[in-house]
Amino acid sequence: MEITLKPIGKVVNAVEKSSEKVDWSQVVSILEVNPELEEGLEGIEEFNRIMVIFWFHLAEETCLKVHPRGDKSKPLRGVFSTRAPVRPNRIGVTVVELLRREGNRLVVKGLDAYNGTPILDIKPYFPEGEGDERPPWVKGG
Amino acid sequence: MEITLKPIGKVVNAVEKSSEKVDWSQVVSILEVNPELEEGLEGIEEFNRIMVIFWFHLAEETCLKVHPRGDKSKPLRGVFSTRAPVRPNRIGVTVVELLRREGNRLVVKGLDAYNGTPILDIKPYFPEGEGDERPPWVKGG
Repeated sequence: MEITLKPIGKVVNAVEKSSEKVDWSQVVSILEVNPELEEGLEGIEEFNRIMVIFWFHLAEETCLKVHPRGDKSKPLRGVFSTRAPVRPNRIGVTVVELLRREGNRLVVKGLDAYNGTPILDIKPYFPEGEGDERPPWVKGG
Repeated sequence: MEITLKPIGKVVNAVEKSSEKVDWSQVVSILEVNPELEEGLEGIEEFNRIMVIFWFHLAEETCLKVHPRGDKSKPLRGVFSTRAPVRPNRIGVTVVELLRREGNRLVVKGLDAYNGTPILDIKPYFPEGEGDERPPWVKGG
């Protein structure tokens, strides 16, 4: 069984793979969603945090065992118990702060993805016990 | 640009699409990971909660606007501001409780996916400010 996906957009920011010592928590990125999908973003601006699902397009290999965070002083672990990009399906998931929406563009903070990264999906983030972040139409449900 | 994925395993549980009034929070599922990928699970059992990325294989259409939770009394919203399955890329992401690992099988609680759902990825879940859930090799990083 094979599953085929098409990106819904791409990440635009100032971070390239060659960039050094990046503090991802401070990186501001634009999620540029394909214009024909803009309608699908309606209501997203009511959330403070969203979940970005993206494709690690620069990962070159697949490994079942990795050193956590690339630190070779740490013992090898199964890749599914880490967030390393070298996974069988190179899907990344990160919760980010949504600063604002400008039409088909979402300005977010804290996304750990390089410039040009394909975006696969965007979802609202509902942390348990943090009901205040949910807009009224969600709370009621 | 197209991206091709192969499932890493599938969900086994007692819930079919025809099942009624399912309380997903109480559903126990087995994540049956393909045997050749079992090595990639090493260390996952040290986490209480994991993130399951799966494919909504039973979704039949794609919509950019949906009624939240299928409730037609609620106004239409953009699909990216909901968790509805009818999204452009039918990816689901749910944080579940990891009860135990049995080789290539993970027994989890709270996965809102039907029996037979293809699994795309499994990741550890690191909620912010809940450091106690991280095993020592993560804390140190």
